[in-house]
Amino acid sequence: MQQTYRLVIDCPDQVGLVASVAQFLADHGATIVEASHHTDLQTKRFFMRHEIGASSIKLDYASFVNEFAPIANEYQMQWSLNDSNHKRRVALLGSVESHCLVDLLHRWHTGELHCDIPCIIANHPQMEQFAKWYDVPFHWVDFKTLGKDRAFEQIATLLSDYNVDLTVLARFMQILPDWLCQTINGKAINIHHSFLPSFAGARPYQQAYDRGVKLIGATCHYVTQDLDEGPIIEQSVKRISHSDSAADMVRKGKDCEVTALAHGVRYHLEDRVIIHRNKTVVFA
Amino acid sequence: MQQTYRLVIDCPDQVGLVASVAQFLADHGATIVEASHHTDLQTKRFFMRHEIGASSIKLDYASFVNEFAPIANEYQMQWSLNDSNHKRRVALLGSVESHCLVDLLHRWHTGELHCDIPCIIANHPQMEQFAKWYDVPFHWVDFKTLGKDRAFEQIATLLSDYNVDLTVLARFMQILPDWLCQTINGKAINIHHSFLPSFAGARPYQQAYDRGVKLIGATCHYVTQDLDEGPIIEQSVKRISHSDSAADMVRKGKDCEVTALAHGVRYHLEDRVIIHRNKTVVFA
Amino acid sequence: MQQTYRLVIDCPDQVGLVASVAQFLADHGATIVEASHHTDLQTKRFFMRHEIGASSIKLDYASFVNEFAPIANEYQMQWSLNDSNHKRRVALLGSVESHCLVDLLHRWHTGELHCDIPCIIANHPQMEQFAKWYDVPFHWVDFKTLGKDRAFEQIATLLSDYNVDLTVLARFMQILPDWLCQTINGKAINIHHSFLPSFAGARPYQQAYDRGVKLIGATCHYVTQDLDEGPIIEQSVKRISHSDSAADMVRKGKDCEVTALAHGVRYHLEDRVIIHRNKTVVFA
Amino acid sequence: MQQTYRLVIDCPDQVGLVASVAQFLADHGATIVEASHHTDLQTKRFFMRHEIGASSIKLDYASFVNEFAPIANEYQMQWSLNDSNHKRRVALLGSVESHCLVDLLHRWHTGELHCDIPCIIANHPQMEQFAKWYDVPFHWVDFKTLGKDRAFEQIATLLSDYNVDLTVLARFMQILPDWLCQTINGKAINIHHSFLPSFAGARPYQQAYDRGVKLIGATCHYVTQDLDEGPIIEQSVKRISHSDSAADMVRKGKDCEVTALAHGVRYHLEDRVIIHRNKTVVFA
Repeated sequence: MQQTYRLVIDCPDQVGLVASVAQFLADHGATIVEASHHTDLQTKRFFMRHEIGASSIKLDYASFVNEFAPIANEYQMQWSLNDSNHKRRVALLGSVESHCLVDLLHRWHTGELHCDIPCIIANHPQMEQFAKWYDVPFHWVDFKTLGKDRAFEQIATLLSDYNVDLTVLARFMQILPDWLCQTINGKAINIHHSFLPSFAGARPYQQAYDRGVKLIGATCHYVTQDLDEGPIIEQSVKRISHSDSAADMVRKGKDCEVTALAHGVRYHLEDRVIIHRNKTVVFA
Repeated sequence: MQQTYRLVIDCPDQVGLVASVAQFLADHGATIVEASHHTDLQTKRFFMRHEIGASSIKLDYASFVNEFAPIANEYQMQWSLNDSNHKRRVALLGSVESHCLVDLLHRWHTGELHCDIPCIIANHPQMEQFAKWYDVPFHWVDFKTLGKDRAFEQIATLLSDYNVDLTVLARFMQILPDWLCQTINGKAINIHHSFLPSFAGARPYQQAYDRGVKLIGATCHYVTQDLDEGPIIEQSVKRISHSDSAADMVRKGKDCEVTALAHGVRYHLEDRVIIHRNKTVVFA
Repeated sequence: MQQTYRLVIDCPDQVGLVASVAQFLADHGATIVEASHHTDLQTKRFFMRHEIGASSIKLDYASFVNEFAPIANEYQMQWSLNDSNHKRRVALLGSVESHCLVDLLHRWHTGELHCDIPCIIANHPQMEQFAKWYDVPFHWVDFKTLGKDRAFEQIATLLSDYNVDLTVLARFMQILPDWLCQTINGKAINIHHSFLPSFAGARPYQQAYDRGVKLIGATCHYVTQDLDEGPIIEQSVKRISHSDSAADMVRKGKDCEVTALAHGVRYHLEDRVIIHRNKTVVFA
Repeated sequence: MQQTYRLVIDCPDQVGLVASVAQFLADHGATIVEASHHTDLQTKRFFMRHEIGASSIKLDYASFVNEFAPIANEYQMQWSLNDSNHKRRVALLGSVESHCLVDLLHRWHTGELHCDIPCIIANHPQMEQFAKWYDVPFHWVDFKTLGKDRAFEQIATLLSDYNVDLTVLARFMQILPDWLCQTINGKAINIHHSFLPSFAGARPYQQAYDRGVKLIGATCHYVTQDLDEGPIIEQSVKRISHSDSAADMVRKGKDCEVTALAHGVRYHLEDRVIIHRNKTVVFA
């Protein structure tokens, strides 16, 4: 995989903005591998992502940051520059359902997800076997013994000790406390097993069964203090019928969960997602 | 199209039931064009639909009904027998959006929807042109002049005068009063422009835009007194992204509405739908 | 709908290119409503589409073209600038199947397709009724009486007389001769009733039925001299099963045809499609 | 999971057939968990699958078979009765791509696929690690050293020694010789990485990239002597665009392959598939 720099910009829309950025890139010989733009016409906000061939540009990472800073200031940009060779550190949080966790581990193992996975944390011990297979440290945080407060403190300590950049709730069945949501705001992704906003909260497949919907789904979103209300990154649905039992719906839903979460995590790791208020721009 | 009888049965699940029905059909030489079964294992309820070649069976419609009645009684069946040659009378209710109405008219015109359309009723005059093209009587019920109560009385009178079997709300933007919902219970189909239960009520596309979902949809359901809460027949979704404005979502959503409604109406006309509590069995 | 200019560029990829275009636009105060880029990394070709608020730019159409020409020359661009207020002239070619034709007419009638439809041409008389409803001149070109050669000459004359910009084959069941394909190269769109390259040629639904596929589809593509081999703009599929007869497949396929063609035509009319060799870039 | 008997019938369509089977089941007190019928109106062939609660029926497996035989003979049935508690023995054949193999192993591990997996066989050694994790015997058959003929003889011996009921080619990249196809006819399932019949043969993603299709897919089918021509069980597709490189298509395609194969294998293991000429009836 070619090394690239990913320049992601979020700023008020202004005439001259693209020209300034493009001129900067051209002046340093940058080859553009991929470029995406979006203007939110309601909020007059501009979003841009460039993926730049690292070997083409006559600047190292630090110089790039330094030299680009004046332009960023002029246009009041929120911005980031990421080196594709720099791997983010991703912690997986699990419970007893293995499908999402094992899927992410396999995509990481085969290189589809370009990151490090320094640890797996779970409130039940069952996921340890998969952690061992993939040679990832496993931490069982026993909620029953510790109580919720101490258990979440322990999780927070682990995330901090491992220098985690992204926390993925891979069917982690505990509701995070507000203080932890704040700490990892914008850096935690959850998979909810319904097409939100339908069937938020507990037992969504049973809710879907009771309502008699003809489609079930899954929603990958950023974690916020408002349960199942965070910015949505990706959704996936499947057709069902009267002949599907609640158990069938669970089975079909798992396939939705796996793909929606895998997409969402990859988009995040490739700097394709920008959170804007309670929504996302996803340059997929 | 081959003439068929459609025998639809809904009864408590019992051993011997299928054998009795099958023996009855065999005794009269019936050729089965299509057969569908479903057992709801939770409620122990059994559902069955047979489509029988009319020329194969040595019974006319009235004799069939008479001779089958004892079996139906024995097994406490709710049942119906419909002759495919008998066309149901379908009234279309519209407002100002033409896409669903015109689509249904065209499918009717080409024979895909096997029914009569004796009238189009609308609370605005714009749909008259399409009614004229398809040579269907048009009735503008002016809600502003009449007021809601008298307007709905007028609609009810029209439905009664035209001997309407099925009322289709093809983006009819008025909420039906409870008394009318009761009158046409199980005989009125609505299209709601969201994947229910998400975004019930007014302006669903704006709601979807504000929430930042990545899929929009439409839901075809039976009308009940609880707004947007009736049994769902069919749902359809489409993928959207941050680059879709609320107007784009309306455009994409229309394609969902058109197909979900067309399917739902066809299923109903072909006796493929059985309402069971607040859900449907759809032998699609 | 806001008036916009659509600047579409197709040229060899070069450093400085985007900066030059962006600077030109900024110098004239252009507000960018939508911007899309694509680099074909294999062929080193660059594609760009800008949709510019017409009221923001301090240039009229003719001056824009004049002043942009030097940049275009410098970078060896194939390019176009289109005013959204300028409606293209679209001829519809039909036979006996009305679903695609009527759908396009309705989308045009409601303003979803922003174009003029100066004429409908068909090799059978049945479509005349729809032409009348929408008040579009209808020409029946009788292939049986005229013979193929004279019939196509007559069609070519009609297209020329009506100053047609785009010819849409809305289930037109005649194979165009090479000379006509050449004449309208890049300006004629066909709908084929299969997911190409599967089931090219005649009776695709029967072919699909015989092969026992579990998905059927439709393909919208530019017409070229190689039958069903032109650049694909859009494809649509639907799930089928063993219980679908060939007739069911035709019915389901029609919904695919209608949406694939409607999308393809809209993309073309909004200058969202660039043909590159035998493929398309579609800035949807 | 409730123990069931699965009675699957394939015979000429005749009046009285369903009544006879239903009467037999009723006479022995059978509760029907699931029942599916299909009549092929072209070939006048009838297909039926019953899933019967084992505890409800007053017959053990052997007696059921004995007592049903006369009915089967009378109606010239090809039929089978399978006990859901009897696990089929499934061999997985792999090469170097792990996604399908690991997915099947995980679904087996979690009980979604109800079978035994006695061995994994591969023409490369890389899959051994996954075999070890799941504690399944692994056999590397070295095609380079052995040559094709002896390699396939060795595979055939392994399949025989392990008493394999179903052979799954989970991205096994060798073409099976005719004699082996015949041996395992109807008992071998392959996943092809295109929506057949498009892009049969080698490098389907490159073929798809070159043709510029807007959808890619995967096809799960029974293996026959005609490469990629066997009866199709399941197909899956995903939308792509000009911005997807051949590598992106490979990544997206893998998700199609995984789900199509998992569905196909499950349908087979649950006796939901009947092969009829070169097509399948799938009671999904």
